[in-house]
Amino acid sequence: MKNLLAFAMILLGGAVPLAAQNGAALAPAQIVAAAPRADWRPIASKDLLVMELAPDASGKARRVVIQLLPPPFSQGWIDNIRTLAAAHWWDGLAVTRVQDNYVAQWGDPDGEDKAKARPLPPGLNVVPEQDYTAPLDQSVPAAALILPHGDAYAPHTLLQGGWPLGRDAGGQWPVHCYGMVGVGRNLSPDTGSGAELYAVIGHAPRHLDRNIALVGRVIEGIELLSSLPRGTGALGVYETRAEQVPIRSLRLGNAVPGLPAYEYLATDTATFARYADARANRHDAFFIHPAGGADICNVPVPVRRVPAR
Amino acid sequence: MKNLLAFAMILLGGAVPLAAQNGAALAPAQIVAAAPRADWRPIASKDLLVMELAPDASGKARRVVIQLLPPPFSQGWIDNIRTLAAAHWWDGLAVTRVQDNYVAQWGDPDGEDKAKARPLPPGLNVVPEQDYTAPLDQSVPAAALILPHGDAYAPHTLLQGGWPLGRDAGGQWPVHCYGMVGVGRNLSPDTGSGAELYAVIGHAPRHLDRNIALVGRVIEGIELLSSLPRGTGALGVYETRAEQVPIRSLRLGNAVPGLPAYEYLATDTATFARYADARANRHDAFFIHPAGGADICNVPVPVRRVPAR
Repeated sequence: MKNLLAFAMILLGGAVPLAAQNGAALAPAQIVAAAPRADWRPIASKDLLVMELAPDASGKARRVVIQLLPPPFSQGWIDNIRTLAAAHWWDGLAVTRVQDNYVAQWGDPDGEDKAKARPLPPGLNVVPEQDYTAPLDQSVPAAALILPHGDAYAPHTLLQGGWPLGRDAGGQWPVHCYGMVGVGRNLSPDTGSGAELYAVIGHAPRHLDRNIALVGRVIEGIELLSSLPRGTGALGVYETRAEQVPIRSLRLGNAVPGLPAYEYLATDTATFARYADARANRHDAFFIHPAGGADICNVPVPVRRVPAR
Repeated sequence: MKNLLAFAMILLGGAVPLAAQNGAALAPAQIVAAAPRADWRPIASKDLLVMELAPDASGKARRVVIQLLPPPFSQGWIDNIRTLAAAHWWDGLAVTRVQDNYVAQWGDPDGEDKAKARPLPPGLNVVPEQDYTAPLDQSVPAAALILPHGDAYAPHTLLQGGWPLGRDAGGQWPVHCYGMVGVGRNLSPDTGSGAELYAVIGHAPRHLDRNIALVGRVIEGIELLSSLPRGTGALGVYETRAEQVPIRSLRLGNAVPGLPAYEYLATDTATFARYADARANRHDAFFIHPAGGADICNVPVPVRRVPAR
């Protein structure tokens, strides 16, 4: 298995923290494994969404955990999602679409049929398009790690408050990296309510930045969505009810008994800066040609279950 | 299903060519659908690899078709792959590793156990690391579409001869986009023989560029690899033989009776330039904020089965 294990050097977050190679620089996963406890920040359970899909064919439970974006990003849609989760609105609905190298999407299979659609709870916000972008945080760059590398989609990319962002002179916005969760919508000026959600399961579709609301990211269980069979209908839509994957429940984390606690590696720490630099400049044993850069979506923010203390 | 169908506007290559929106600019898929026949170039069957996996649980056949890179790229490894395919070397071996947001890998499950490994055929090349990069093609930029946007990994990115490339003053090289196929290896200076192959099934791991040999890309059936269950071992390795996905056969295309013909959209055509521009600047009805750029891996080269003439 040496061919496989050699890949240990090119991976973030292998299952086992890697022993330092003799004389070689630390790999990103090693830097993360050595992070001081104080560099990890808690994620409040009220800022998590927990989606329980129906068990798989072998009876195994399938849980997807999503972290919601903090202010000032997308709070109108996130308020709606809190309302929908509190109303148990998604229970019994389904994953309805899985398109290869793009998205897995869930919501009401009958959402476009007025006679059959599940009614939305009262009080949902109608959010305007300008909320795709948040005002510039004047504390940037002090509290952010700005990636000094080229990006095809934004004048600047940065990691701030634990999130990957794009930025220009007018504002900043979350970006569509692998695992990010967004709000399906119809044609503009509709921005979606938050009832129809998708997760990115392929190469970052960054052209969606500022065109669709992002509301969070999958921090556990993305592989349960990304390994689902692709729908054979146009755009990966499941063509029959039998193909759809039922949602047992979707709850805010503080409504889920026994939910583990989660932490993320704070992006304003020296550890994170070392980790990002190691992602951009691989000097560990496997590599012969460090890239000299990394795109924002190849510097994923490490998240872990809180270890025993 | 309006929420879903709205996504038609943000997709390349939906199953059905999209009708032009009233007054809106053409979407990339529409530009491709309208390409003149002369803009499509044949892919010779001898430059294809056809991998037949064991049928899925429902008995459905699973075929993955790979296009090999043309000269001057990676020909030492590709020669080996031709030798291995002609020897039927992969038949009865398996997909042994599927790691989420990274790669699916196939080869000899016993490859690292000298007592059990399948012997390699004679005459394989030992290829040096300098072959990760090819000499600069002096016809560039005349025959290439250079993407004028930022890239974190290469001074320039371009599409030339139907392939995504990085370039600097010293040479050019293929890049690790979704679906690209590369050669597993051990630690440097080993560069791999070509017996152990992987396909990218996640966000482009561009830090591997010039560190591993790329030999081609999946042009049909990538979803059969990307939707496989993720391995639960370190690095996504399947921990039991039962989890591995057997390879029935792996052949060069000219050894596969009845193989369809394939074409790619030539990258040196006005059609391709319009398509790339539309990928970078979405003005079709769904979009409110064209990105103004696209990264090299978000301008996938369209490939199709040859339509009836």
